[in-house]
Amino acid sequence: MDAATEAVLAANAAFYSAFNERDTASMDVIWARRAAVSCIHPHGNLLTSREQVMASWFAMLANPAQGKIVVGGEVVSVRGEMAMVACREFVAGTPVVATNLFVLEDGHWRMAHHHGSPVALARG
Amino acid sequence: MDAATEAVLAANAAFYSAFNERDTASMDVIWARRAAVSCIHPHGNLLTSREQVMASWFAMLANPAQGKIVVGGEVVSVRGEMAMVACREFVAGTPVVATNLFVLEDGHWRMAHHHGSPVALARG
Repeated sequence: MDAATEAVLAANAAFYSAFNERDTASMDVIWARRAAVSCIHPHGNLLTSREQVMASWFAMLANPAQGKIVVGGEVVSVRGEMAMVACREFVAGTPVVATNLFVLEDGHWRMAHHHGSPVALARG
Repeated sequence: MDAATEAVLAANAAFYSAFNERDTASMDVIWARRAAVSCIHPHGNLLTSREQVMASWFAMLANPAQGKIVVGGEVVSVRGEMAMVACREFVAGTPVVATNLFVLEDGHWRMAHHHGSPVALARG
């Protein structure tokens, strides 16, 4: 595994750690500042401003009923200063699939887009 | 709009045209050959081989009951040889959101990942 792929996987893991630890400061750092950011939550529509996107995460992190995410099966594509991780999530036992987009900002891989959607169990 | 953004939007439009015209040859050309490809259909799990991904599209294109897709609201991010389009789809009237990833191969923007998920109307 090359250094860029390792760094992207570390950024992806940091995103899930911030979520599971309800760490709003880290979640804010993880998302890109200058690149456009967008987000699609399970069953949700496209959010297209950083303000909307961060508000959606902060609401989840503040919700005591929010389940933790177990992540696995990461598939990584890196080209220059953009990268994608597709992965599987179990959110409080519910299977979800996610597409995470990262961009390189000031030498750090920052999240620019997250798309999560539930998997219907019958379609495995 | 710069030339790369225009070219990525044209590739995104070509993908939806191929789908709506049930054009299997174009759909095959549109997907990357050398880059890893992956795909998540609405309610579906992560498909991670070109063979699986193309088989899933060909099955849809061969299905006479498959509805057409009206696409809009595209948001584009381009960095070097990778690009993402997030957009809204109406598939036979059902609202869907999609994340489409493109990579530059031999001077052409080719699809490397598609993630589509239905939007629950109550959550807008």
